[in-house]
Amino acid sequence: MASINANYQKLQAGYLFPEIGKRVRAFAAQHPAAKIIRLGIGDVVLPLPAPIVEALKSGADELGKRETFKGYGPEQGYDFLLEAIARHYAGQGATVSPDEIFVSDGSKCDTANIQEIFAADSRVAVTDPVYPVYVDTNVMAGRTGPVDATGRYQGLTYLPTTAENGFEPPLPPARVDLVYLCSPSNPTGAVMSRGALETWVAWARANRAILLFDAAYEAFIREPGLVHSIYEIPGAREVAIEFRSLSKTAGFTGTRCAYIVVPKELHAEGPGGERVSVHGLWNRRHTTKFNGVSYPIQRAAAAIFDPRGQAGLQAGVRANIDAYMENARLIREGLTRAGYTVHGGVNAPYIWLKIPGGLTSWQFFDRLLGEAHVVGTPGSGFGACGEGYFRLSAFGFRENVEEAVARIQAKLPAR
Amino acid sequence: MASINANYQKLQAGYLFPEIGKRVRAFAAQHPAAKIIRLGIGDVVLPLPAPIVEALKSGADELGKRETFKGYGPEQGYDFLLEAIARHYAGQGATVSPDEIFVSDGSKCDTANIQEIFAADSRVAVTDPVYPVYVDTNVMAGRTGPVDATGRYQGLTYLPTTAENGFEPPLPPARVDLVYLCSPSNPTGAVMSRGALETWVAWARANRAILLFDAAYEAFIREPGLVHSIYEIPGAREVAIEFRSLSKTAGFTGTRCAYIVVPKELHAEGPGGERVSVHGLWNRRHTTKFNGVSYPIQRAAAAIFDPRGQAGLQAGVRANIDAYMENARLIREGLTRAGYTVHGGVNAPYIWLKIPGGLTSWQFFDRLLGEAHVVGTPGSGFGACGEGYFRLSAFGFRENVEEAVARIQAKLPAR
Repeated sequence: MASINANYQKLQAGYLFPEIGKRVRAFAAQHPAAKIIRLGIGDVVLPLPAPIVEALKSGADELGKRETFKGYGPEQGYDFLLEAIARHYAGQGATVSPDEIFVSDGSKCDTANIQEIFAADSRVAVTDPVYPVYVDTNVMAGRTGPVDATGRYQGLTYLPTTAENGFEPPLPPARVDLVYLCSPSNPTGAVMSRGALETWVAWARANRAILLFDAAYEAFIREPGLVHSIYEIPGAREVAIEFRSLSKTAGFTGTRCAYIVVPKELHAEGPGGERVSVHGLWNRRHTTKFNGVSYPIQRAAAAIFDPRGQAGLQAGVRANIDAYMENARLIREGLTRAGYTVHGGVNAPYIWLKIPGGLTSWQFFDRLLGEAHVVGTPGSGFGACGEGYFRLSAFGFRENVEEAVARIQAKLPAR
Repeated sequence: MASINANYQKLQAGYLFPEIGKRVRAFAAQHPAAKIIRLGIGDVVLPLPAPIVEALKSGADELGKRETFKGYGPEQGYDFLLEAIARHYAGQGATVSPDEIFVSDGSKCDTANIQEIFAADSRVAVTDPVYPVYVDTNVMAGRTGPVDATGRYQGLTYLPTTAENGFEPPLPPARVDLVYLCSPSNPTGAVMSRGALETWVAWARANRAILLFDAAYEAFIREPGLVHSIYEIPGAREVAIEFRSLSKTAGFTGTRCAYIVVPKELHAEGPGGERVSVHGLWNRRHTTKFNGVSYPIQRAAAAIFDPRGQAGLQAGVRANIDAYMENARLIREGLTRAGYTVHGGVNAPYIWLKIPGGLTSWQFFDRLLGEAHVVGTPGSGFGACGEGYFRLSAFGFRENVEEAVARIQAKLPAR
């Protein structure tokens, strides 16, 4: 008799974004005239720059001609893309070779799948608040017990990152094997300092732990001197896997492309105590369960990078990032003027605001939707320490962001 | 200390196709003048028909304009594609509703991932020979013991499908929970008969087992009356998941798109003996670990289907299938004339030939490469019962297929 993976039954019923969608639909049905502005789910709105579209179309044309048709490509990605990514890393002061890069269709998939290559009894740490995918995929894999009333799973180590510690994840209080870190952070918008990352790398080396470093938002870092890649930190190649996404970097949420770096120096322990190459394991997983990213999409992805462009990016890509970060400034400054305490939004497209008046995150969600017709994301959806916080995303059209801020100032000032 | 998933160490070192690649590269390096013809890996060569390319480019153009830009789409796929697929099923006499379909980037991924939603101690059956991904992903998940000298993993149930039983997989001799079936079969090219499928559905219903039915090659079925979808069999919706791919159907091996059907009626058992919706489980997995297929690729995929076209397919797509099946005829008839016993190639793009003279599959591989400069796939790479067989793929240019057949007839006749 076929039986289910019962770990799925430990998962909390509603994944965050479907629940938001449900409430927004219900509100829209009751208030058909309301003009709802969505700054909730972190989804981009600005079109792909023309050179990216042209590269995609040119790749499509190649598929239409016998001479240039492409069947199965390398599962890891085409050399032209791997080399563009390696050059991009070099421009950021990090050494990554093309054969350490694995191109995929999204960081959601990569951060979800990475746990598969590690032992079922691995001890896992996540920040709190956290991107829910890291947690849910470890629940599905059976690395946790049941969930408690605050949404925490037994057996996971949670590292509180709040205003009290400047949003710097503290080192784990007890032994863990794998640590998910996200910088710039989704959801808090905080960037881990160079010193903090040096401490983490030293800790991982001393404890033979592995850092799973999600840098999906690194392109949004504006202040000089901040760390874009964990591999800028000496010694990180022995202890860290890095995830990067083109979703937000280049407006690829609907186009789909990301990549992960697994350095050759990275090892984990085998059952007999031997050192096993993590690169080899991931390569086996990737080539057995994945068949490469669509060729024209890889062509489009390669067009994102331009060593002569600002920050190594094609001009239109950079312009879109600038536009979103201008939105972030408008939200940050506008809400500050309305009396809110806001975090993030300087080196990340997320603004993490402290909810005034003792409301819960979901109560504030409902009030913001009901009174300002603005959709955001309740902080508690990202973890127990997110309760009392709220995430606004800078991904939107400027005019909508301006209107959202004006509405919040008028209808829902914090003072 | 980070430890690996030690199940990976049970995997046989070389996945089949990398090993073939290695031998071919070594031969090519030693014989630079040899014109090697590749009928090994099942990869398409004919370009995408113009309407598919146009749909892809038009989708790309939409991404370049503010009014039509697409961010995150539904993880399950856009309605326009789900509805086209549901209509296609209806045209084949199978009832599948759009919300039972999950669009993905490949059947390799889908058939690899499906096992995750079932219990870790599920008893799994596969045919022998078999598409290696079904086996390897269950090894990675820890559902097997070590491998034996013939390449069989302890704990898996193997169902021999050979000339002796007409390549019809026999029912499992002992209790199993999940059965992978592939029809038309990769690698044997055999199509399971309607009667056999009725027997399997009845068996699954009686045993509350689940059939994982891989129909990636259904578009190559030429003979009328054969089953394209498991859902043509009454009662299958309660016991079967179906996998379909556009890779071979429409030359999408490098473009990437596939889909899977999980009927609402399909249930498996929970830990308390309760019936749990498998559709709900897969939906949770799919939305947590996947973010949808690239929008322009979904546009291209939708253009494959045409209810007015032959077999419900766009004319150019059908023409490419016809061309490959003409290759299959040339191989089948040419090798028969050369004294070989051949199977498959009538309703599938694979020809499964019996190796003459007592050679092993790899010995024949080396001889075929060395003497005829033709690359095929050793049957033993697909399982113990594949030893003594060899797979040739009909995916190639006609002129190359003709030359390959002529070379085999001249250099390596079976009599």
